[in-house]
Amino acid sequence: MSQQARAVATRAQIVRGAAETFEKQGYVGASVGTIIENAGLTKGALYFHFRSKDELARHIVAEQHAISIAAVEAIGREEALAIEQIVMLCHEMARQIVHDPIVRAGIRITLELSADEQGPTDPYLDWINACEQLARRAIEQGDLRSDIDPPRFARFVIGAFTGVHTVSQVLAHRTDLEQRVDDMWMFLLPGIMPEDRHPDIERIRKARSVGVPVVGAGQVPARG
Amino acid sequence: MSQQARAVATRAQIVRGAAETFEKQGYVGASVGTIIENAGLTKGALYFHFRSKDELARHIVAEQHAISIAAVEAIGREEALAIEQIVMLCHEMARQIVHDPIVRAGIRITLELSADEQGPTDPYLDWINACEQLARRAIEQGDLRSDIDPPRFARFVIGAFTGVHTVSQVLAHRTDLEQRVDDMWMFLLPGIMPEDRHPDIERIRKARSVGVPVVGAGQVPARG
Repeated sequence: MSQQARAVATRAQIVRGAAETFEKQGYVGASVGTIIENAGLTKGALYFHFRSKDELARHIVAEQHAISIAAVEAIGREEALAIEQIVMLCHEMARQIVHDPIVRAGIRITLELSADEQGPTDPYLDWINACEQLARRAIEQGDLRSDIDPPRFARFVIGAFTGVHTVSQVLAHRTDLEQRVDDMWMFLLPGIMPEDRHPDIERIRKARSVGVPVVGAGQVPARG
Repeated sequence: MSQQARAVATRAQIVRGAAETFEKQGYVGASVGTIIENAGLTKGALYFHFRSKDELARHIVAEQHAISIAAVEAIGREEALAIEQIVMLCHEMARQIVHDPIVRAGIRITLELSADEQGPTDPYLDWINACEQLARRAIEQGDLRSDIDPPRFARFVIGAFTGVHTVSQVLAHRTDLEQRVDDMWMFLLPGIMPEDRHPDIERIRKARSVGVPVVGAGQVPARG
């Protein structure tokens, strides 16, 4: 392995270990010592790549941001109605949370740091903005009621998804998340779609993205 | 002040100080030292009332549970339709979160401990059960569609509220929470109410509880 390839691999190893530590112990609870232990590395290796725990935490949030952007772009390329893409977006967020420790760590760090004015907001804003654009197109396509305000609707959808996930985490350790997201759309769609599109509700509820790429640890520059 | 009154006052002071510490630093992050400092007490005073940080955390969740129960009972006594009481429930949860540090601490502790199998679930289950009973009555009263499954609906409503709150916390430090909860019902009600009740939507959205008592720190026995 070249020196550069080794450095990339080491950084990915640090990020993965840190994500697991942040996910379980939170930003305040996680110590650099535990992160090093979980990553199976030395303090020197960690400090070669990241200046501090804070930089590492912000890097994880940036990776989560990159993962979100990639998912939003992939869903945008699907051959599907905008309203179906909104449903896909929620199921894709659920899939990422269940499968990617970086996403779970990012969520926990974001929530903890939100006690502060300087807390990160990017991952939430990514999803809200994506949902808002899709809502505008869904109104044009006649699948969303024309009196719905896209920014408020998008904020509600991402909020509702976020809490459906939280309650699934607390009560069922996320084992029922897919089902609960499907319930969400069952309750929401009849109220937000114009009457004449109601026959499509069952099909729209089943919309899932097929082309979202997997973005691994180490895709975001650590510094600069 | 009698010795007993002093003990009650001291315990309330510990609980309040601990709630503020848990809210800001989380369960893992909060140390007994910081809790004592924030409560302005000695280690001896704390250990006289609570055996450990864990006992203190579980006590706060129990207080949150008691606060929830009191609110649910007060809302049940309101002269209002069941569907209005569901709307009241959400606005009351929002009010508690904004005004009561014990509720905020309880939410954070519950979420942190949910990584564990033994995490507390009571406060979520309180609200879900209350919402489920109200949903059954709302169906009987003709204000909720008869094909709606009350347990799934209740779980969704509490989930959606939870996340609307989370996003409001992350993006607006809860300053827009009341407005966002109102948006939630604007998007939800048309889909869950039978057509013939739609003229009532605006009135139902405005439903607020007036009689919820304020339950202060120290209302729950610390031990036994």
